[in-house]
Amino acid sequence: MSLAITLASVPQGEPTLADFGQIDEIIAEPGPGELRVRVLYLSLDPYMRGVMSGRHMGHSVTLGSVLPGAVVGVVEVSHDARFSAGDFVQCEGGWREIIIVRAEQAVKIDPTLAPISTYLGVLGMPGLTAYAGLCYLADPRPGQTVVVSAAVGPVGSTVGQIAKILGCRAVGIAGGAAKCNHLITQFGFDEAVDYKRDDFAQRLAAACPNSIDVYFDNVGGAVLEACIGRLALHAKIILCGLIDQYNKDQRPPGPNLGPVIGARATMKGLVVYDHFDKLDEYRRTASGWIKAGKLRYLEDVTVGLANAPAAFCKLMRGENFGKSLVQLQVP
Amino acid sequence: MSLAITLASVPQGEPTLADFGQIDEIIAEPGPGELRVRVLYLSLDPYMRGVMSGRHMGHSVTLGSVLPGAVVGVVEVSHDARFSAGDFVQCEGGWREIIIVRAEQAVKIDPTLAPISTYLGVLGMPGLTAYAGLCYLADPRPGQTVVVSAAVGPVGSTVGQIAKILGCRAVGIAGGAAKCNHLITQFGFDEAVDYKRDDFAQRLAAACPNSIDVYFDNVGGAVLEACIGRLALHAKIILCGLIDQYNKDQRPPGPNLGPVIGARATMKGLVVYDHFDKLDEYRRTASGWIKAGKLRYLEDVTVGLANAPAAFCKLMRGENFGKSLVQLQVP
Repeated sequence: MSLAITLASVPQGEPTLADFGQIDEIIAEPGPGELRVRVLYLSLDPYMRGVMSGRHMGHSVTLGSVLPGAVVGVVEVSHDARFSAGDFVQCEGGWREIIIVRAEQAVKIDPTLAPISTYLGVLGMPGLTAYAGLCYLADPRPGQTVVVSAAVGPVGSTVGQIAKILGCRAVGIAGGAAKCNHLITQFGFDEAVDYKRDDFAQRLAAACPNSIDVYFDNVGGAVLEACIGRLALHAKIILCGLIDQYNKDQRPPGPNLGPVIGARATMKGLVVYDHFDKLDEYRRTASGWIKAGKLRYLEDVTVGLANAPAAFCKLMRGENFGKSLVQLQVP
Repeated sequence: MSLAITLASVPQGEPTLADFGQIDEIIAEPGPGELRVRVLYLSLDPYMRGVMSGRHMGHSVTLGSVLPGAVVGVVEVSHDARFSAGDFVQCEGGWREIIIVRAEQAVKIDPTLAPISTYLGVLGMPGLTAYAGLCYLADPRPGQTVVVSAAVGPVGSTVGQIAKILGCRAVGIAGGAAKCNHLITQFGFDEAVDYKRDDFAQRLAAACPNSIDVYFDNVGGAVLEACIGRLALHAKIILCGLIDQYNKDQRPPGPNLGPVIGARATMKGLVVYDHFDKLDEYRRTASGWIKAGKLRYLEDVTVGLANAPAAFCKLMRGENFGKSLVQLQVP
């Protein structure tokens, strides 16, 4: 018999112990091509909260079923030539003491490279998240300021340290003095800012005197808002997690950025002043389109400068119909 | 004497006529290198609302001063060799009937290329905004779905038509049946969706059966929210305007995306599943960093599977200190 933990009820807000159940599983003998693995470590990750509510893109769980989760363990019985008893493996196993897994779904891990638990953390999915997001999506230059939230966690602490390895300035955001102290003394961040303090925004500004070039967001909400207010020109924001809203039944108001993550979307700020060098190219191109009947325009013309305020108020009410112009002379 | 319109008071919410004043300006003779221009058209643009509140990045105005604004006009007197009386010019002139402008700040415009009013609209800053944003920042592929809000306006209508010229599907969002009808019949959009209807979200979904590849946002707020909910994989969102909040004294809750525009920032959604091909590269690199003392990690270990629910609840409260793991066997 082997203990397993199930979903007893979908949490309302923050999960409580009552949302979990226990069952004893009878472990069958592994079949051909299967392994029996004794779990040594189970990874607990924030994404599981979305799984419990049926809001996760990759995993789902029904009431009464064993919760999914990544594990590392040791092979006890192998019915596959590629594995032997005693091998350490990593796989998706769930909240279980013993698992039966198909050999092709297990990955052998090397305990001499690093402790096996790290394959669930700094050398696992959280570490890869930090590495891919920072090195491939953000790609900061030496000397730039990289800010990361949930900075003591496995993603955040890896982001900050890789930022330092790349020659960047690393600023971590975490809750409480103990976590902030750890960021400086153990992870080598240049600055740590406590988001639970009333003067968080001012301290963030002081920690980022040259603004924020990269913000690696694991939390969303007020922390994202504060970082958006300190962006340097051409800053990049990596949207990785939204733990601020995982435990809220009502999604907070304002644009929900969750689907931006799911779609791997890109949002870009556009300011036309940056593109004046393309004005001649555009006018040549567009006047050709207009003459060819491919590009039409619509003008909402008010006559007389004295009527300009009324026309502007109309524009602000969305009652204009096309480009709002004031014609000062009737030809 | 020449009429000019001034800012009498900073609008609270939507501007009213009481926020504007009138003055008669005495027009001096233009000095050397200056032109006297009779204004023919004044452009009214949503950005002016931010100017009136002191929230605009490029322009400002004080109480009692003439409001800024782009104009086209005809040169009446030129004291510069490059211009002659009768030339048509475009310049920043403000809400005035007659302006004195330095020659280097005026741009001669060609009335044979297109009507002079278009230099403030489809061939002007709004048109360039559409062109640069769509062609340079979004760069859609033929067949993709491009959605634009405030679609009857000069930016939106140009975005939709350029999308069609590029071979894309164009979906416009506007307020009311008349505007939506105009999008289809006059501007050639494939679909038009009325954001004022209660079933806006369903109609948007129906108009975008293959989701949204590019959303060109001129409004923010609920329309942005609805479009974010319909994104295709690797979608791009161009943040160009936030007219939804220009007239609000209290900024709506949720992340304020205004600074993302000002910073020309990029936001990207990150999903680690896309990067599993880099796992080996990462593990080689990161285990080297760990051995060299450059990359540290922190684990928050709970012993015993039966204690996993309590450990997960602690993680959800942000009380974990480092990577959350459940160790099933004490070695």
